Amino acid sequence: MSVKITDLARELNLSVATISKALKDSHEISLETKQRVFELAKKLNYTPNPYASGLRKKSSKTIAVVLPEVADSFFSLAINGIESIAHDKGYHVLIYLTHESFKREESILKEFQSGRVDGILISVSGETRTSSHVQEVIAAGMPVVFFDRICEDVETAKVITDDFESSYNATCHLLKAGCSNIVYLSTSPALSINSNRMEGYRQGLADNGAQKSDVTLCTGDNTENYRIIRELLTREKRPDGLIASVEKLTTPIYLLCRELNISIPEELKVVSFTNLQAALILTPTLTTITQPAFEMGKAAASILFKGIEKKDFDLSKEKVVIPSVLAERSSTQTAGVQYP
Amino acid sequence: MSVKITDLARELNLSVATISKALKDSHEISLETKQRVFELAKKLNYTPNPYASGLRKKSSKTIAVVLPEVADSFFSLAINGIESIAHDKGYHVLIYLTHESFKREESILKEFQSGRVDGILISVSGETRTSSHVQEVIAAGMPVVFFDRICEDVETAKVITDDFESSYNATCHLLKAGCSNIVYLSTSPALSINSNRMEGYRQGLADNGAQKSDVTLCTGDNTENYRIIRELLTREKRPDGLIASVEKLTTPIYLLCRELNISIPEELKVVSFTNLQAALILTPTLTTITQPAFEMGKAAASILFKGIEKKDFDLSKEKVVIPSVLAERSSTQTAGVQYP
Repeated sequence: MSVKITDLARELNLSVATISKALKDSHEISLETKQRVFELAKKLNYTPNPYASGLRKKSSKTIAVVLPEVADSFFSLAINGIESIAHDKGYHVLIYLTHESFKREESILKEFQSGRVDGILISVSGETRTSSHVQEVIAAGMPVVFFDRICEDVETAKVITDDFESSYNATCHLLKAGCSNIVYLSTSPALSINSNRMEGYRQGLADNGAQKSDVTLCTGDNTENYRIIRELLTREKRPDGLIASVEKLTTPIYLLCRELNISIPEELKVVSFTNLQAALILTPTLTTITQPAFEMGKAAASILFKGIEKKDFDLSKEKVVIPSVLAERSSTQTAGVQYP
Repeated sequence: MSVKITDLARELNLSVATISKALKDSHEISLETKQRVFELAKKLNYTPNPYASGLRKKSSKTIAVVLPEVADSFFSLAINGIESIAHDKGYHVLIYLTHESFKREESILKEFQSGRVDGILISVSGETRTSSHVQEVIAAGMPVVFFDRICEDVETAKVITDDFESSYNATCHLLKAGCSNIVYLSTSPALSINSNRMEGYRQGLADNGAQKSDVTLCTGDNTENYRIIRELLTREKRPDGLIASVEKLTTPIYLLCRELNISIPEELKVVSFTNLQAALILTPTLTTITQPAFEMGKAAASILFKGIEKKDFDLSKEKVVIPSVLAERSSTQTAGVQYP
C-alpha cells in the first residue's frame, strides 16, 4: 500500500490539513514544520496525489453527489437542483448512494482519490461519526461541499437549512394548538440535522415552560419503526403531538392512527419534515416542515463550481443557510381554524 | 475525430453488430464480409475500442445505472434492488440521470466508451426514439441490460414487467366496477412501457365490447398536467374511470377531484401505476398497479454481472418478465364491496 497523507499526519502527530498546507509550501506553516514534513515524505517515499500538487490532469467534467438514499423526496429534489446547475456548466453528475452505511461512504470517498471526478457534494450517512475520510479527500486537493447532513468539524463549504428554528417553530405551533405531550421521533442521533432539530424541539418546550422533552428513536427498517410507533401510540399516557423528523415515518403514523382509531388532529397532531407532494392529498392534509431542497442543491452546486473553477476560492469560508417553511395544514388544526 | 464502428457500418452499409462480429473474427460472418470490414478499418485507421478487442484494462468494479429520474418510487426501489446485488459483488453503482432528455442520454452513453464502467443498466428517456447510441456502446463490447423502459430493437438482455396484462386487467377491473367511460392518461407515446400499457387498455375495452378507447396525453410539467386533467374532469361527458400510467399524476387527480367536488370512487374510479407507499394512506386508498421494482432491479443486475463475468455469456438471449400486481383498494370500490 502506498503512503498516504494521513500516514504522514499520524507519524508527525499533525493534522491532515497542516500536512497538506506544508506540502504546498503554505506561508501559514512554519519552516520547521515544513522541513519535518518534507523529510518524512521523502523518507517514506510519499507521492503526492495529482490533486495536491496542482498536477491535475485534464478535468473529468464530472462531479459526484454522495447521498444516503434517493427514496426520500428531499434528496430527489436536491438532485434536480444540483443537475440544473451542472447541466448549464456542461458537467456530468454521478450519484453514489451510501444506503446510510459509513463503510460504503468511506469506500466511495477513497475511490475519488483516483481523480475520477472534479468535485464532490456530500450529505453524510446516518452512521457517520468521524470525518477523516472527508478530511483526507479535501487534503488531497479535491473541492468538497457539504449539504444538509454535514460534518461540523470539517473546514469546507456547507449548505444547510435552519433545522433548529424549524423544529422550534413546529414545537411552538403544536403547543399553541393545545398539545401538552409532544414526542419527537428521532432519526440517527449522530446526524447534525437531527441534533439541531432535537435541540430546537427541546428549546421550544423550555421557552414555553412546557413538558419535559420526550424523544423516541426510529432508526430501524419499516417494520421496526412501525412496531416502535405502535408501542408509542398504545402507551398509557399517549402523546397528543408528534414531530416526525423524517419523511418515511408519515405512512406508519397515519396507518396506525387508522388502525388504532386515533383521530388526527383531534386526538393526535402530526408535523413531519417532508417535501412529499402527497402531503396535500392525505386525509387529513399533513402539516409539513418543507425544506428548500431544490434551492439547497442549486446553492451547493454553485459553490462547488466556484471551488472547481477558481483556484484561489476559499471553500472553507462558505456557509449558506436557506430557511425551511412550516406549512400548516389539517393534521395540526385546532377546532375553529380551517386549513386547506 | 477518430473513426468509429458506426462509420464503418455506414460506409459498408452493414449493421453495427455485423461490423463488431467481423472485427472479432466471428464464425457467424462470411469471410468475404470480414475482408471488406478489415480493409476499410485499415484504410480509415480504425482503432478498436479496448472493450472490443478484449484488451480491456483492469476492471473498474463499477456499473452504471442510466435512469430518467429518481423522483418516481419505481426507480428508487429499482436502485435498491440493483445495489443489493452490486454490493454483494463488491461493485460500485453510479447513477446517471437523463431527466427524460434524449440528448443527455446520448452524451452519457458516449462517455462510457472511455471505459469508465464495466457494464450498464438502462431505462431509456421519454424522448428516446432511436437506439444507435445504445447499439454503439454494445458493439464496442460493453455489457448492457435494459430494464423497464427498453428499446425493442436492440439485441441485448431485457428485464420488464407485464405492462400489457397489467393494464388489461386494470381496464377489466374498472369495467366490472361499472365504468363506461374510461380514460387512459398516457406518458410519452414512444416509450415501450407506455405503448404496451395503452394496448392492454385498448384490448381490455375491445374484449368486453365496451366504449372506444380514449387517451389523454400528460407529458408536460406539473402545472401543464394539472391543466390537462382539469380540462378532462370538466368536460361535458366526464370520464367515470381513469388509468394513470405514471405515479406523478396521482396528486393532481386527487387535488382536482377535491376542488371540483368529484367523489372518488362514487363518481370517478382511479387506478394508478405506482409503488408509492402513501397509496395506503390516501383517502380513499388508491388502487394501484404495483410493479416488482426491487425484483426487476435485482434481476437486471444479476444478468448484467453474468455478462460482465462470463465472456461467453450471450446477453441477447436473456429476457425476463416479472408480473405486476393489481392491488384493489377504495378508489375503485363499488357499493357493497369493502376494501381496506
